[in-house]
Amino acid sequence: EIILEENQESTDPLPSWNDGKTKESIINFVTKATTEGHPDFIKKEDRIVTTDNDGTLWSEQPAYFQLFFALDRIHALASEHPEWKNKQPYKSVLENDMKTLMAQGEKGILEIVMASHAGISTDEFASIVKDWIATAQHPTKKKKYTELVFQPMLELINYLQANEFKTFIVSGGGIEFMRPWTEEVYNIPKDQVVGSSIKTKYEYKDGQPTITRLAEIDLIDDKEGKPVGINRYIGRKPVIAIGNSDGDLQMMHWAESNSIKNLQIYIHHTDSTREWAYDRESHIGTFDKALDEASQKGWALVDMAKDWKVIYPYELKD
Amino acid sequence: EIILEENQESTDPLPSWNDGKTKESIINFVTKATTEGHPDFIKKEDRIVTTDNDGTLWSEQPAYFQLFFALDRIHALASEHPEWKNKQPYKSVLENDMKTLMAQGEKGILEIVMASHAGISTDEFASIVKDWIATAQHPTKKKKYTELVFQPMLELINYLQANEFKTFIVSGGGIEFMRPWTEEVYNIPKDQVVGSSIKTKYEYKDGQPTITRLAEIDLIDDKEGKPVGINRYIGRKPVIAIGNSDGDLQMMHWAESNSIKNLQIYIHHTDSTREWAYDRESHIGTFDKALDEASQKGWALVDMAKDWKVIYPYELKD
Ligand SMILES: [Ca+2]
Ligand SMILES: [Ca+2]
Repeated sequence: EIILEENQESTDPLPSWNDGKTKESIINFVTKATTEGHPDFIKKEDRIVTTDNDGTLWSEQPAYFQLFFALDRIHALASEHPEWKNKQPYKSVLENDMKTLMAQGEKGILEIVMASHAGISTDEFASIVKDWIATAQHPTKKKKYTELVFQPMLELINYLQANEFKTFIVSGGGIEFMRPWTEEVYNIPKDQVVGSSIKTKYEYKDGQPTITRLAEIDLIDDKEGKPVGINRYIGRKPVIAIGNSDGDLQMMHWAESNSIKNLQIYIHHTDSTREWAYDRESHIGTFDKALDEASQKGWALVDMAKDWKVIYPYELKD
Repeated sequence: EIILEENQESTDPLPSWNDGKTKESIINFVTKATTEGHPDFIKKEDRIVTTDNDGTLWSEQPAYFQLFFALDRIHALASEHPEWKNKQPYKSVLENDMKTLMAQGEKGILEIVMASHAGISTDEFASIVKDWIATAQHPTKKKKYTELVFQPMLELINYLQANEFKTFIVSGGGIEFMRPWTEEVYNIPKDQVVGSSIKTKYEYKDGQPTITRLAEIDLIDDKEGKPVGINRYIGRKPVIAIGNSDGDLQMMHWAESNSIKNLQIYIHHTDSTREWAYDRESHIGTFDKALDEASQKGWALVDMAKDWKVIYPYELKD
């Protein structure tokens, strides 16, 4: 039997990935995991993949995209809140004064997030997110946010799904901020999206049931919260964990503690031309302790500049 | 083309269900939902089924099976807790004095549940549940608890899955009590099991990650908690909701508020010979307000005595 060179290339499951150690380690893992009789074969029900979102499936600079959503929402709600003009942290948002906003630290950001994410029904919130994501543009890339997903990661998700891995997002981002669009963009069903959440309340008024979003934290699905979220939503340890920052390290350890063969993949933002280059010193997506550990342990380390032929799907069409 | 009568019968998707209004309404709903072009066609991603567990997929008399687990666990732990001999509610458990235990109300039961379910790692807890469910016997039926699942419901789950409905358990029972065995018994994956939960804590000790179960309530997945749990875990409204008590009514309303065509199914325990007969007056599985509403609204109401040829799978083998 002769297999033509062209044929091989046309069936490359990861066409936007350059050949090399990283691509090879992923394909090797999947091939063994799906080869019956192989010592590293993994039963279908155990083929659990957990992937971070911000900085792993889409960009996260110059700020988490969900923060842009929150800021836009504060602007949209300002007419109902005349007092915000003279009240921090709202004042700085309305004056587009990011420096003053950031100077207020986590407490200020949390107040903005709660004011923009709580107090309405889950149905209303989903519809607001849908409208925003369909139209809002990234401040410097001048693209819709969902155009700033990583083409090589779309291919990886598709490749894993084709090999009957069940793919879950496990993100510090808001679960109800992601669910309205992740299905369409990543082909990941809503019930396979794990994220940070606020508490909710069910009420039945005039024969109409409503779930209202409360201004109270439920789960922060980051760092120690990631294994907690995985245990809560999935109930088994991943065999493949994918992330880009120190906030994913606990998820990597959780996968590592799986009695089943497992793979850790870290995305390293090394491409200052096509995307952004940042790691140890960055406030967003800090990749420091985990970068050391990934190197020590020989985890798959994706060098975006070297490993990826294209970054965004629109580059394929240009 | 001639279709033989025998052939038709052999392909009955619900062979343990007697023909009649209930069976017909279920098959009609599924047939329309899966017929492309039909006005009641439902897209695959929207084919969400949520089913209660206790009293819906398996029996729940003379007490929730999870309570028997808790009591057995208190006995097993007693040697480590000599003080329990003289301390309620433990004393009554160790003396098998159910009357005194029940007289202590919810607070007593909660203490028993926490003492028997918390303070250990999720891995340990899963293994304890697995061991218990593999060996423990129902006090009067003298069968393993997993033998007391309803054969007609296994067929219904299988029928819905074959028609590409995604089946979720949404139960007041403990999520980590169910997950160790629901996959094998119901063919429902762990991540499609929603239940009551306690809080957990992730720690990384000596390079070993552990999630510990804390004696603090997270979600009570009953009544108002069911739509909250559905929203948290699934992120979309069900098109089929199945339950047996007033505790499922809010889930039924949540399904009813779906903009997509939906079906409510209630199991009515009417068979005092083969199972148990109870409804309005029962403390377990109270079916009163919901029985009225099901009748008024014409929801599918399964009369166990009349609609089911067999109750338990072992009857088929006898
Ligand atoms: Ca990230
Ligand atoms: Ca029930």
